[in-house]
Amino acid sequence: MTKVIILGGGFGGVFTAKHLKKIAPPDTDIRLISENNYFTFQPLLPEVAAGAIGASDSVTPLRVLLPGVRTVMGEVRAIDLARKNVDIVQGSKRRIKTMTYDHLVLALGQVVHLSRVPGLEEHAFPIKHSAHALRLRNHVINCLEYADSVDDPQIKARLLTFVVVGAGFSGVETVGEIKDMIDRSLKFYPNIAKADVRTVLVEFSDRILGELPEKLANYAQERLARQGIDVWLNTAVKSASATTVEMADGRILTSSTVVATIGNGPSPLIEALDIEKERGRLKVDRFMRIPGVDGAWAVGDAALIPLTDTPEGPRDYAPPTAQFAVREGQQLAANVAAQISGAPLKAFHYVPRGAMASIGNYRAVASTMGVQLHGVLAWLLWRTFYLGMLPGAVTKLRVVLNWALDLFAPRNLGQVQEVKKPSAKYMRFSEGQEVFEPGMIPDGFYTIVSGSCRLEIPRDDGGAPYRRDLKVGDHFGERVLFRQQLRTGRVTALEDSRVLRVQRDDFWRLSSSFPMLEKYFKNYIAENFPEDLRPHVLGGTERDTKTPPKS
Amino acid sequence: MTKVIILGGGFGGVFTAKHLKKIAPPDTDIRLISENNYFTFQPLLPEVAAGAIGASDSVTPLRVLLPGVRTVMGEVRAIDLARKNVDIVQGSKRRIKTMTYDHLVLALGQVVHLSRVPGLEEHAFPIKHSAHALRLRNHVINCLEYADSVDDPQIKARLLTFVVVGAGFSGVETVGEIKDMIDRSLKFYPNIAKADVRTVLVEFSDRILGELPEKLANYAQERLARQGIDVWLNTAVKSASATTVEMADGRILTSSTVVATIGNGPSPLIEALDIEKERGRLKVDRFMRIPGVDGAWAVGDAALIPLTDTPEGPRDYAPPTAQFAVREGQQLAANVAAQISGAPLKAFHYVPRGAMASIGNYRAVASTMGVQLHGVLAWLLWRTFYLGMLPGAVTKLRVVLNWALDLFAPRNLGQVQEVKKPSAKYMRFSEGQEVFEPGMIPDGFYTIVSGSCRLEIPRDDGGAPYRRDLKVGDHFGERVLFRQQLRTGRVTALEDSRVLRVQRDDFWRLSSSFPMLEKYFKNYIAENFPEDLRPHVLGGTERDTKTPPKS
Repeated sequence: MTKVIILGGGFGGVFTAKHLKKIAPPDTDIRLISENNYFTFQPLLPEVAAGAIGASDSVTPLRVLLPGVRTVMGEVRAIDLARKNVDIVQGSKRRIKTMTYDHLVLALGQVVHLSRVPGLEEHAFPIKHSAHALRLRNHVINCLEYADSVDDPQIKARLLTFVVVGAGFSGVETVGEIKDMIDRSLKFYPNIAKADVRTVLVEFSDRILGELPEKLANYAQERLARQGIDVWLNTAVKSASATTVEMADGRILTSSTVVATIGNGPSPLIEALDIEKERGRLKVDRFMRIPGVDGAWAVGDAALIPLTDTPEGPRDYAPPTAQFAVREGQQLAANVAAQISGAPLKAFHYVPRGAMASIGNYRAVASTMGVQLHGVLAWLLWRTFYLGMLPGAVTKLRVVLNWALDLFAPRNLGQVQEVKKPSAKYMRFSEGQEVFEPGMIPDGFYTIVSGSCRLEIPRDDGGAPYRRDLKVGDHFGERVLFRQQLRTGRVTALEDSRVLRVQRDDFWRLSSSFPMLEKYFKNYIAENFPEDLRPHVLGGTERDTKTPPKS
Repeated sequence: MTKVIILGGGFGGVFTAKHLKKIAPPDTDIRLISENNYFTFQPLLPEVAAGAIGASDSVTPLRVLLPGVRTVMGEVRAIDLARKNVDIVQGSKRRIKTMTYDHLVLALGQVVHLSRVPGLEEHAFPIKHSAHALRLRNHVINCLEYADSVDDPQIKARLLTFVVVGAGFSGVETVGEIKDMIDRSLKFYPNIAKADVRTVLVEFSDRILGELPEKLANYAQERLARQGIDVWLNTAVKSASATTVEMADGRILTSSTVVATIGNGPSPLIEALDIEKERGRLKVDRFMRIPGVDGAWAVGDAALIPLTDTPEGPRDYAPPTAQFAVREGQQLAANVAAQISGAPLKAFHYVPRGAMASIGNYRAVASTMGVQLHGVLAWLLWRTFYLGMLPGAVTKLRVVLNWALDLFAPRNLGQVQEVKKPSAKYMRFSEGQEVFEPGMIPDGFYTIVSGSCRLEIPRDDGGAPYRRDLKVGDHFGERVLFRQQLRTGRVTALEDSRVLRVQRDDFWRLSSSFPMLEKYFKNYIAENFPEDLRPHVLGGTERDTKTPPKS
């Protein structure tokens, strides 16, 4: 039985899995591991952000999409290309689970990297996942709600200025959809005039929609202008803050909303791999194999796939678009199947069918098979095309119904709120219950609010375990600050107890920017733990449990 | 012009506003203040939790629902019944805004109070808002996903045990809907057998659906049993933890999911009012006036409305149901309008039309006009009835379409994820930008990660402001720990700076359960601030800005 593990549930991963299931020998064990249990149809996210369709209409559960494929919702912690296995972690019990493979398909896509422009990472809204789209939607509605009742004209102007950075497909569609939603909703906001709203699309290059023929891009730009959207070309964003976006040329926009559709980079897992990369993408051959690594393949945005071979090496590469990822996945599946059966592999080759962009207000631009279209007809084509790509009849039907409703009904302005809760969480443990145990992923820092707990750490030399009884006001889990390792201690409630858990990331951020706290913990660990239980960075000799025993 | 302010956007508040707009003099200024911009149709929340309808189908924007009413999305901070005004805060700029009224309608409903059972507040899922329903849905799907791939049978059993506490309408509908969703989804989870799933409905009294005739309740209980749901009557929950629910009789369920449909209490605002309450509800007369308070009314779950008058005082009170709240709102609106025009008021009177409960799997029970129905017919009646109550034609249509799709399509198992971000947030400020200023609501504690900032606090006596320049590793905003007041200082970035903001609630929870931290801040404040800028609890004489100047 051949084991194939596919990492990532985007276009590349899903189409690899789907096609492989069809053509691979029936006893092939195909697993797809993804952080989410669903596939996100990214081209529809601007419509989710604008409330034209519901958030769940842009996602399809992977299990429903991929019958016969074993889908595993989990977080990949490590990839061991030499031993051919993958470490994953699932939400319950938070222990590392190791899975071995014969073939590994890296389809991890790209992640949003905004750190190059100061302030964008802190304040911009990305739009890559459905959660991003929902958050943006809630935020835009918040701005309208507050602008409707705020007295200060400066704050009102700030709330009603919406900036989208990057005029590729995603940026153009997002700015068009948001403007459309706002225009259609203003009748419900008696204190906001149409002229109060400002939308700006900022683009670094000298034109929008670089992937499309210039004529269409010009048409699109004109339509955006007619919709009342400012398009700033040849404009670089220099920095952003909670209330401003500053351009390199000195212009400053006062705005509460910056959407960033720029800045992609490799996922941290790809970055950590000791494999040649170029522009943050994994170098593969024309068969999508990773050279020199047995059984390793890459597909989609994570891979740099050559389209041609010249004596000087490849010149053209597959662009990181959904259209290409779908074809790549199909070809990769065929190649993995061929490899399993000993057949020859085929180089990836694809001539794109065309490109389309929706620009809001029932308009789109399209260029396909030598024909260029724009306006309402192109928009209908766009919708039909994406509908065809949407997986599953029910999802298709849902989206069509939503679109139909959207034609004559007001946009749904009801927010889909997240639960507002402090991230520091109180937890209760009954007498004898375990808070955590050795081998778990450290989840945070704990203080005891009531009751008492016992900390026990087994020793490597088989000696008596380190033991410490903790009472109200005492804390545990503080060593997570200084190490990447799994828990080595066990904490048990000695009586019915209430503890406060501060999430690991929050605790790390606070401690590392608040020197007093870091110093306190360093002293605490030095004074309270023997040398063999002190983290390396604090001069201890604690054993490294980063790589857990493989099964 | 008469000013009417309605606090709360539930059934009571919305129907008061809607009816008042119809009958009050046209120049009446009607404002409805709500924390959310939408009305939640609570009876549909169990269906949202089970994915039968989308989250946005259970909510309707208040502005769309209430044309002509000024809806304000904001958080009420204080109610001053003597001066007849209300303090609210909105998300932007976070300053207090005071609104005066002639008539105030308290329609703040009730909030979930789970603190009576240890562990429920920490670990149970309430189901009162659409965000709760979504969170529960995500959690149930997580449990299925993890259970499908976990190896440990004990963890698997825990993940597949679902406990619902309270067998009123909400509890019965929730357990029925969740079981239904799981049963219909199991075909996508190859490693979960139907027998692996356990659902338990726990009820303190000796029967379910206390509001319905016993015969119907018995039928419902039998249907639940046939669906495979365990019903534990006469059972009190003693405590809960992240992994267990313990009953008073000693039985312990190992479960990752406890849904609590019990435990309502007054909202903190109602609690803070110096007005007579009974069972956590405001005492009103039969006209829904609050006795002895000029221009103050109460309606819905927040009010204890007598239905009869006897020489010994009222005996019967309106129950806290949607049906009653709708009628109460209409009567209250009529009474406010009558008061404005000097007409006589009318006592509230209503004979309920009946009661219904959906029990999942296309079944319901209903008792109306002396007729008792159960089964599929009752379920159709239930759907029709609620559809009729749903506000807005588009929402109605959406819900019908969703229901229709749900009849033949698999349940949508795609999660609607929240954005996973640490709650401690990095923020960037350009040189000269303000981090906060006097009069703002304190939002948290700040440390400086890069750059520098200046803190300035004006003095009451007009003397030189307190000034302090802060560099990397320094902090500000720490006084929020020890006071309830508005910001008195102004912090400005001296250069381009990056700061970390820990949310106020997180910071408060951590500091108050971690004595070292509290001690540090006490010392820090004593050493660094002059007496007139030290909080009262630390022996200072800082002026009280809790009540901001009224406009």
